[in-house]
Amino acid sequence: MDWDGWGVAPQRKELSPSIRGLLAQVFKVSGESAPRSDVTSIRLRTSAVTTEGRAALAGIVGGDNVSTESADRLVHAGGKSTFDLLRRRSNDVQDAPDAVVRPGDHDEVLAVLRWCTDSGIAVVPFGGGTSVVGGLDPVRNGFPAVIALDLRRLNALTAVDPVSRTATLGAGLTGPEAEKLLATHGFSLGHFPQSFQFASIGGFAATRSSGQASAGYGRFDDMVTHLKVATPRGTLDVGRGPASAAGPDLRELFVGSEGAFGVITEVTLRVHPVPETTAYQAWSFPDFEAGATALRAVVQAGAAPTVLRLSDEVETGVNLARADSIGEQAATPGCLAVTTFEGSAAHVAARQAEASAILAAEGGTALGEEAARQWEEGRFNAPYLRDTLLDTGVLCETMETATQWSNLSALRSAVTGALVESLAGQGTPPLVMCHISHTYPTGASLYFTVICAQADDPIAQWSKAKGAAGDAITNAGGTITHHHAVGRDHRPWMQAEVGDLGVEVLRAVKSALDPAGILNPGKLIP
Amino acid sequence: MDWDGWGVAPQRKELSPSIRGLLAQVFKVSGESAPRSDVTSIRLRTSAVTTEGRAALAGIVGGDNVSTESADRLVHAGGKSTFDLLRRRSNDVQDAPDAVVRPGDHDEVLAVLRWCTDSGIAVVPFGGGTSVVGGLDPVRNGFPAVIALDLRRLNALTAVDPVSRTATLGAGLTGPEAEKLLATHGFSLGHFPQSFQFASIGGFAATRSSGQASAGYGRFDDMVTHLKVATPRGTLDVGRGPASAAGPDLRELFVGSEGAFGVITEVTLRVHPVPETTAYQAWSFPDFEAGATALRAVVQAGAAPTVLRLSDEVETGVNLARADSIGEQAATPGCLAVTTFEGSAAHVAARQAEASAILAAEGGTALGEEAARQWEEGRFNAPYLRDTLLDTGVLCETMETATQWSNLSALRSAVTGALVESLAGQGTPPLVMCHISHTYPTGASLYFTVICAQADDPIAQWSKAKGAAGDAITNAGGTITHHHAVGRDHRPWMQAEVGDLGVEVLRAVKSALDPAGILNPGKLIP
Repeated sequence: MDWDGWGVAPQRKELSPSIRGLLAQVFKVSGESAPRSDVTSIRLRTSAVTTEGRAALAGIVGGDNVSTESADRLVHAGGKSTFDLLRRRSNDVQDAPDAVVRPGDHDEVLAVLRWCTDSGIAVVPFGGGTSVVGGLDPVRNGFPAVIALDLRRLNALTAVDPVSRTATLGAGLTGPEAEKLLATHGFSLGHFPQSFQFASIGGFAATRSSGQASAGYGRFDDMVTHLKVATPRGTLDVGRGPASAAGPDLRELFVGSEGAFGVITEVTLRVHPVPETTAYQAWSFPDFEAGATALRAVVQAGAAPTVLRLSDEVETGVNLARADSIGEQAATPGCLAVTTFEGSAAHVAARQAEASAILAAEGGTALGEEAARQWEEGRFNAPYLRDTLLDTGVLCETMETATQWSNLSALRSAVTGALVESLAGQGTPPLVMCHISHTYPTGASLYFTVICAQADDPIAQWSKAKGAAGDAITNAGGTITHHHAVGRDHRPWMQAEVGDLGVEVLRAVKSALDPAGILNPGKLIP
Repeated sequence: MDWDGWGVAPQRKELSPSIRGLLAQVFKVSGESAPRSDVTSIRLRTSAVTTEGRAALAGIVGGDNVSTESADRLVHAGGKSTFDLLRRRSNDVQDAPDAVVRPGDHDEVLAVLRWCTDSGIAVVPFGGGTSVVGGLDPVRNGFPAVIALDLRRLNALTAVDPVSRTATLGAGLTGPEAEKLLATHGFSLGHFPQSFQFASIGGFAATRSSGQASAGYGRFDDMVTHLKVATPRGTLDVGRGPASAAGPDLRELFVGSEGAFGVITEVTLRVHPVPETTAYQAWSFPDFEAGATALRAVVQAGAAPTVLRLSDEVETGVNLARADSIGEQAATPGCLAVTTFEGSAAHVAARQAEASAILAAEGGTALGEEAARQWEEGRFNAPYLRDTLLDTGVLCETMETATQWSNLSALRSAVTGALVESLAGQGTPPLVMCHISHTYPTGASLYFTVICAQADDPIAQWSKAKGAAGDAITNAGGTITHHHAVGRDHRPWMQAEVGDLGVEVLRAVKSALDPAGILNPGKLIP
């Protein structure tokens, strides 16, 4: 990916003149894109890795796989949160890891971790680089240097079990690479988060990613049957059989461990046959409450589609649910819901009949296929829009949470209220949109998109708003993150999330596996 | 429950004269039941709790809730494994906890744990007393005394959320008590393990129990949304929202913790409306392989019934699948599979149509409702039969594991082979039966029932066979337990199950929460 934006330049999204005009009118921004800095003009913190250190690392992974070049360091400077993107648009000296190290297999990862433990060098495990929570920040935490451990060379499909429908994948494979390898065996993961095009298999596991088809295929943590983890103290293999009562489920301790306990090098996952057929059906509900009740009825009946999502009135109005059409059509009334059904023809027909009957009974109006297909076509594009908006002087960021169905409305109000109050209080009243994209029998996620004019110091501006929203989430009983993970940005709320003793448990596990504390310091664990 | 057998006397099962004759013929046992010892004649280890200790505990929970009476101690002497039952049929001095303490709420549990930590007294958390893996053995581990912490007074339904479909239950409620309380709100847990009538909500969570309707309602660990845990270091609340990416899932660390990390006092669970309707359908398959392939096809298609199980040829032949009819009918050929479907009429009809089409396509012959209904009626009775068999000089025990579908056949052969080799080698050739009772997209459980003549020292006899079978399980890639838990009996295989580093992680967590090591010593963690 480009170092200062999401994805790759050819896929960047421009705004239409009418949208630019609208932004100028609503947010009083110029509507013109400021040019980004030339990469060669960036001032970069000097690498602190010594010649001896570089040689030692080269001895483990090979000379070609250790780099202290600015270009390499810059693309490993962190993730893609709005904080990250704003920092990279500033003229300050940029921070980045002191070296990029690319191990070729599990044993090289182990050896690098041992050397870094002995040498007191911090390590940031690095997959696709798509973190939006500061999970890849080059935090040194008192160590003289930090390296990015780039896992992209762990890119093999090492096993396929067509009977049990599992596959073992290298941690460094991206979503499309994994799908391509699996497709040669007739399989698919069914994991399509917004980061799909760039994020890695190891990253999905380390952050408890959840894809847009989670209603049908589950969250990524549901898919993981086995993990191979390299730690400074050695290798862990976690996950045995399809299910077990042999004590605590250690798989669930490493899924979501964000590189703080070890480096996930290999992931065994449940796979599905590439679906025979996909059915699309969009729905309209009079308001968000009615739509949420209908989604709840479907999932609680055990009749969930493969994709099940609902945009609120504002998001529906600006067509954000169809990112390629944003603002370019007449505003749509009500709330748009999208359903898709994948599988065998018989399964799709039976499931669609059951789900559609429930959605109609709950007050939904069937809109046909078109809007659902449009949503699918544009579903990976929103992050590109954010870059364009940032270049135009507009602040844009997303945040997400989850809670019980009975608390969903209160949580949505609390978070929206906190964002509006904070940003309006700073003289930049926002547009706050919300959708439900992940549903469970007991609750659902809430995903917020916030747009407003940038203040003079947009980082300070969003810090304030994000802080208020995070407090609102935990005070209103939500989880601080449903699928973005903790990283550095959500770490201040971990005490509220798991309690003091919960934090002590996390520290005890870290201390047992990473006694020197070199692994991804400053993330996850307070 | 009776101290020396499963359940309560009125429900004991007698064997018909023809079965007694058959057992005498096959296993060369007398076929006559030996009388059990009179409770008053039992020699019981003297209680090591001092008068001061008793007074201190009474100060926390009240004088009526501390007992050092033999009758109380005996019914808390341990669980209901065949080892336990054989020990209680011997004339040796019996061991039991030194006192039984019955706290009335979470804070009393905390206070008892603090006092026991300060006083160096071991604590065995005790729910329904149905462990079949030595999970309740009064192990002192160097401490001068051990108490049974009986949680039966934590028996309230403290919250119901009908919108999110969750309920919060006291850890001490038994299965039937919980169902009765939930039914007043129109809900059911859908958790029906063989121990249902006596086991407790806290015990289900602490041991990762899995019920006979797991295909429809999930394992107990799937149902848990929140746990309240009392530890010597304070209280932990784990589980937030329906799903979260806020780091490792600590819920999954305490589900399955078997009282070694803390005492689960309250469990919030997903509940279901009491089903509108239940459909029953039995099937016959020509052999176990064909039946297993059919079950796999159903669950991988996402068309699983509520109950889905398959008995092998031997189990089908002796009608063990219908415990009330065992041996009393002509032997049934092939392999019997049982399916039930619960939910709304529309859901049941759609699901049954899809599943039945797959089972028929895979070579199943529909047998109608009768055999499925008979299975349901007798499903809690097998443990009573075991007692009668033990009294008759027959050894009877069960063991279980799980693995990937592709490994199921090899694992079944390995375990059966190990049991036959060990027991035949001891001069007591066994009858080994097997069924699949829990299915997943990637694999299934295997549940073995073993019957043979008792040797002179049946405990040594079964120790040898159990050891051989446990080694066969781990060597053949199975998990040492799918739903019976680890306790004392499976602890020797935990190193093989989670690896050396995995054991260190468990020890680190225990040490953080129970630094004195008073909680359920000698169980779970090697």
